[in-house]
Amino acid sequence: MSEGVEWALHTCVNLAWVGRPVGSARLAAFYGLPPAYLNKRLQNLVRAGILTSVPGPKGGFALARDPASISLLDVVTAIEGPDPAFRCTGILGDSPWGDKTADHPSTCAIAAAMRRAELAWRRELAGQTIADVCATVERRAPGEPERTRRWFG
Amino acid sequence: MSEGVEWALHTCVNLAWVGRPVGSARLAAFYGLPPAYLNKRLQNLVRAGILTSVPGPKGGFALARDPASISLLDVVTAIEGPDPAFRCTGILGDSPWGDKTADHPSTCAIAAAMRRAELAWRRELAGQTIADVCATVERRAPGEPERTRRWFG
Repeated sequence: MSEGVEWALHTCVNLAWVGRPVGSARLAAFYGLPPAYLNKRLQNLVRAGILTSVPGPKGGFALARDPASISLLDVVTAIEGPDPAFRCTGILGDSPWGDKTADHPSTCAIAAAMRRAELAWRRELAGQTIADVCATVERRAPGEPERTRRWFG
Repeated sequence: MSEGVEWALHTCVNLAWVGRPVGSARLAAFYGLPPAYLNKRLQNLVRAGILTSVPGPKGGFALARDPASISLLDVVTAIEGPDPAFRCTGILGDSPWGDKTADHPSTCAIAAAMRRAELAWRRELAGQTIADVCATVERRAPGEPERTRRWFG
């Protein structure tokens, strides 16, 4: 998984706290990230409907919806794409009695087992939201939202 | 995840049925795989204690232990390595009030959430063995073990 996932998740948490548009250079400066690379990841989040890009002098990136309706799976999928980690290429179809026309990703016992694991991973990520992460941090560090808002000015 | 995982899992199932050493060229020929690449993956399985490499004219690769004690996680880890898919680089330590010396992979709420998903994935893969896959295939195609043994001669 690319570093972009870590950047995107942390940036969504910051935007949830700040509550108004912030430019990508400022978002990048918070962690000392390369602005152009972060900007590309933020564009991925805009295309996925997680962020909006607000034009104008007070513009920037902002959450497009309630942080309680943005799951970690939404963010990971926006950055990494929807493909599963394990891709069945259907090598069973190339075996001596293989049927190349069969739908191996659906029928192969190995593909099914790998898919069950992938679903367990997705289910876990789908059950956790940006709001959940914010709440966890705020329990440990109640001043974090205010401190973050102040820094972003 | 690399194609090597698919190759390795299918090859372990075949070796469970064949029950004696088979050379990598013959194992590769079963699916029309590139023998040199498959051989590299099989060496990964030997290093992980999943296969043994038997020398001599009747030698080749064989399962090193009972297929019921080889989990899919064992095979995936042997090929892909033990690192989690999400790697926390600790960008929290680079924030304006970040502590670079803190153990962010252990304490960050985002790293923890990603780790829970990874554990769900690993748990699922650890709970399924090569013997389970063999049993699933045999329920649908009872002749598969014998047919495979015959092909490998």
